[in-house]
Amino acid sequence: MENTERPLILVTNDDGIFAPGIQTLAQEMKAFGKVLVVAPDKPQSAMGHAITIHNFLRLRKVEFMEGVEAYSCTGTPVDCVKLAVYQIIKGRPALLVSGINHGSNLSINVLYSGTMSAAVEGALEGIPSIGFSLMEYGIDASFVHTRAVVRSVTANVLRHGLNNGCCLNVNIPAAAAGPLKGVRICRQAPGHWADAVECRHDPAGHDYYWLKGEFIAKDQEHDTDVWATSHGYASVVPVQFDMTAHQEMEVLNTWDHAL
Amino acid sequence: MENTERPLILVTNDDGIFAPGIQTLAQEMKAFGKVLVVAPDKPQSAMGHAITIHNFLRLRKVEFMEGVEAYSCTGTPVDCVKLAVYQIIKGRPALLVSGINHGSNLSINVLYSGTMSAAVEGALEGIPSIGFSLMEYGIDASFVHTRAVVRSVTANVLRHGLNNGCCLNVNIPAAAAGPLKGVRICRQAPGHWADAVECRHDPAGHDYYWLKGEFIAKDQEHDTDVWATSHGYASVVPVQFDMTAHQEMEVLNTWDHAL
Repeated sequence: MENTERPLILVTNDDGIFAPGIQTLAQEMKAFGKVLVVAPDKPQSAMGHAITIHNFLRLRKVEFMEGVEAYSCTGTPVDCVKLAVYQIIKGRPALLVSGINHGSNLSINVLYSGTMSAAVEGALEGIPSIGFSLMEYGIDASFVHTRAVVRSVTANVLRHGLNNGCCLNVNIPAAAAGPLKGVRICRQAPGHWADAVECRHDPAGHDYYWLKGEFIAKDQEHDTDVWATSHGYASVVPVQFDMTAHQEMEVLNTWDHAL
Repeated sequence: MENTERPLILVTNDDGIFAPGIQTLAQEMKAFGKVLVVAPDKPQSAMGHAITIHNFLRLRKVEFMEGVEAYSCTGTPVDCVKLAVYQIIKGRPALLVSGINHGSNLSINVLYSGTMSAAVEGALEGIPSIGFSLMEYGIDASFVHTRAVVRSVTANVLRHGLNNGCCLNVNIPAAAAGPLKGVRICRQAPGHWADAVECRHDPAGHDYYWLKGEFIAKDQEHDTDVWATSHGYASVVPVQFDMTAHQEMEVLNTWDHAL
């Protein structure tokens, strides 16, 4: 690819390289720089920060979009980031974007999300990284209204950078929710999944189980991503990979730790 | 099982139900309460917070240890927690312990670790949860010296509880490192994996890749888990599932977010 002065932008996702969301994201990134796509060869939703250590990985160069170099990968979203950085680029891109996910990654779903784990892996590598999610699961979801959000957040990150150890989790309401009111900086809402298992019986009469469940947001304070997206805003949560509960260290130091 | 007054303790891991580490952990837990084991039927290291949503899950009742009810599960460590809580117990145990992992889960490895993701899932469910790891990979590693740490930390958690949203990441140096000096409350050390891909060629001449790499800890300050464990202490890091980088919200609010 020509123009080596343009910033290199790595694009990945967890819905697989043939999902519509990653097409929209790669198209928008062409305005900002040279685009490299490395994405899973099949859906990898809910893979969290999984990496492949008991099997090998393959990369395959694929036709994706004019002017865009693209590879499908047999692994997880985090595997894709590692192969892109250490095998294909052999260096760090100027930006990593992940998505646009088909479905919400609000609240604690940042932990389960392959989309966001790819962005967190980018942050671990010192790459400014953003995960984008559309709050609509359908394969025929409209991504048109997401483009302005993608452009705005991306331009900001390229202009201002992100502090070390931090990436962004961007969630965009479905088109059917009406025109976007804007972008809000939020914290991750507390919440959890309730009633998460359905038992069925196979033709031989043996039990098998599907995870399912209903997501329960625990509060609706106005600084949370759940509140923002249910009130017409795109939410932007700064996400860090330091999981230390620093405020608890003092408490734990009051315990008797004799062995 | 008789004595229904004793607290119910859920035991899981990511090395699989037949790993020696989970045997040690279940044995120790029998002194504290009624033990239920639900663990993967095969190794699930580095699965992070992955859950299974594109396939069903199976549970199989297995012989494990006298007086211990045990199930192997076809899914990930987090799947095991969900099936235990919503299908087997249909309620919350008094305690969840995960491990003892064969290998370290220091620093940012909390993100990749199936052992710790099971503990984080416990915390999401409001269950006091602890992940234990021995800093030695071998199948024949000695767990004898880990028992005192397991007993001390477990007794503390049952006595004091853990604040909502927080679980513990306990790492114990290998026996060969010498007698333990004690237990230290720590923060997660900064660090990352370098040179993470090795390219090989299959007999047909096609490339394939293994993830590998060297873990680089970025500082050696005395309040980190890396420092503590390399100086003869078992480390205890309080881990939270709120990944919001709260300190960055103010910075992001200074950006121009016009669409």
